[in-house]
Amino acid sequence: MTEKTSLKSLVDQHIQSLNLAEREPVNLYGPIDYILSLKGKRIRPILTMLAYQSVSGDLPQKALNLGSAIELFHNFTLLHDDIMDKAPVRRGKPTVHTIWDNNVAILSGDALFAYSMELVVKEFPNHAAALIQEYTQTCLEVCEGQMEDMDLAENDSATIPQYIQMIRKKTAALLGGCMSMGAIAGNASEDIRIKMKTFGESVGIAFQLQDDLMDAFPPEGFGKQVGGDIIENKKTFLLLKAQEIANPEQKEKIENLLNQKDNPEEKVREMLDIFEVLNIRELTAQLIEEYIQKARELSKELSREIQFEPVAAFLQEIANRKL
Amino acid sequence: MTEKTSLKSLVDQHIQSLNLAEREPVNLYGPIDYILSLKGKRIRPILTMLAYQSVSGDLPQKALNLGSAIELFHNFTLLHDDIMDKAPVRRGKPTVHTIWDNNVAILSGDALFAYSMELVVKEFPNHAAALIQEYTQTCLEVCEGQMEDMDLAENDSATIPQYIQMIRKKTAALLGGCMSMGAIAGNASEDIRIKMKTFGESVGIAFQLQDDLMDAFPPEGFGKQVGGDIIENKKTFLLLKAQEIANPEQKEKIENLLNQKDNPEEKVREMLDIFEVLNIRELTAQLIEEYIQKARELSKELSREIQFEPVAAFLQEIANRKL
Repeated sequence: MTEKTSLKSLVDQHIQSLNLAEREPVNLYGPIDYILSLKGKRIRPILTMLAYQSVSGDLPQKALNLGSAIELFHNFTLLHDDIMDKAPVRRGKPTVHTIWDNNVAILSGDALFAYSMELVVKEFPNHAAALIQEYTQTCLEVCEGQMEDMDLAENDSATIPQYIQMIRKKTAALLGGCMSMGAIAGNASEDIRIKMKTFGESVGIAFQLQDDLMDAFPPEGFGKQVGGDIIENKKTFLLLKAQEIANPEQKEKIENLLNQKDNPEEKVREMLDIFEVLNIRELTAQLIEEYIQKARELSKELSREIQFEPVAAFLQEIANRKL
Repeated sequence: MTEKTSLKSLVDQHIQSLNLAEREPVNLYGPIDYILSLKGKRIRPILTMLAYQSVSGDLPQKALNLGSAIELFHNFTLLHDDIMDKAPVRRGKPTVHTIWDNNVAILSGDALFAYSMELVVKEFPNHAAALIQEYTQTCLEVCEGQMEDMDLAENDSATIPQYIQMIRKKTAALLGGCMSMGAIAGNASEDIRIKMKTFGESVGIAFQLQDDLMDAFPPEGFGKQVGGDIIENKKTFLLLKAQEIANPEQKEKIENLLNQKDNPEEKVREMLDIFEVLNIRELTAQLIEEYIQKARELSKELSREIQFEPVAAFLQEIANRKL
């Protein structure tokens, strides 16, 4: 725990030390400094650093720039996603496009992405080509996932495989990329790199499904609004599974609820009733368990070859906080 | 001429062969394929390839991916700039955000930028770190230039040095980047690389000033609307210089014209009259000549050390087409 806390401080300090706030023009770098100073949990850089350590045996801070690059990329995607989603708030604060405007948020995001490239190769010039290749593939998958998410929102016949592919790209690919890039920097074999990447992706899919589940069935004291996804007609696994296994009468009921514009509380309550009858909660938990199980097996295999425990422990800790 | 034409075909074919049109989701890659298929003159990749050849003596096509990367980056900036400028048309065709929408144009641009990274390092893994470092710096300057351009539009006390810095970043930095990255790939000394980069930037500034000049004083048969910049109150060198050297009476006249909303033809005619009286045409031509002269000197120096003539000849050819 203490080690993770100190890695987080290292990342925070390092990002601070890049002095992006002092660059000009201020309309370009101010918004970058703003979103980076909202902090966040820094899961991705810590994961990258631990992945690097697990294969190299080196201190994790040797991959501090590499990890920070991925954190910067993540924040770049938030800047642009928030424009696309017209989101007013991020991490409890107004979004960049709200404080400044869309143009500033587009361009600051572009600059943040550009800046991240150099950090990818800074510590590992000998692995620069392989790191950039993997970085490119990861970034493209994240963009594809965001587009597939927007496509799904418009698609009335969305399927569960489409949904799983979307979250694998939009959310899980970057966790896989952290593992894979940490592995490349640490000189891992191709076999180990792929196992680590698959591990990261499996955990990422499980996390996203868990997010969806908690939106409908929050643990006690969760604090967040219940059923936000239901109110917005978001095509989560829960809804898609319900539509798949519902009988004609239940299907019609779901359809009517999707078309219901007023009385959101009633809408949530009635949708949850259907989920309850169809056992959606357990079906989602089962699918999460499948991905967790896959990650556990990979973790076991990896632990025989490298010092993988700190990586697994870190993700377990995050999962516990979520559950 | 023939060689340049064949290099252009090589670039066109190579970009076609990336098969971006066949990737999914189509809403992400369709717009990318669309903007790349509008072609354009492919000046930047040809310049990169010739720069590479001039230092290495190798065939220019060995830097085909590197050159294409910069062309892809350039098109990414067009996608995003067109959103910011609310531009309906690009290269005679509707812009991406007009055919699709802003979100698609943002995200397709992001993916295009991501894709370009891998092409930067593909042919030169041993120079990957240095290439990415230079690429990052160039991309950041282009973003800074675009922001400074938007800032200048809102700034009633814009100065000529601010304007020159803006065009150096927004337009010239990428030409400098082509030269510099070609030099790195070709294993040039640091001294030669910097001279080549400065050469590219000087030519780029001259080109932009020439563009501004032709907007107000077009050569015969130019075809484009005269005075578009004047109608839009664009802060070009011409306007800023006129404001700088005008007497109080002329200053007031300029101010009134800037506030004039109707009768654009009269506005252009009267502004051109002031430019004529203040000798703005010659003053601009003199400044262009200064940058061209600087480029000529660097070209002479470089020709003593490397095979620089094809690079200089290519840019001369482009300049002739412009003048």
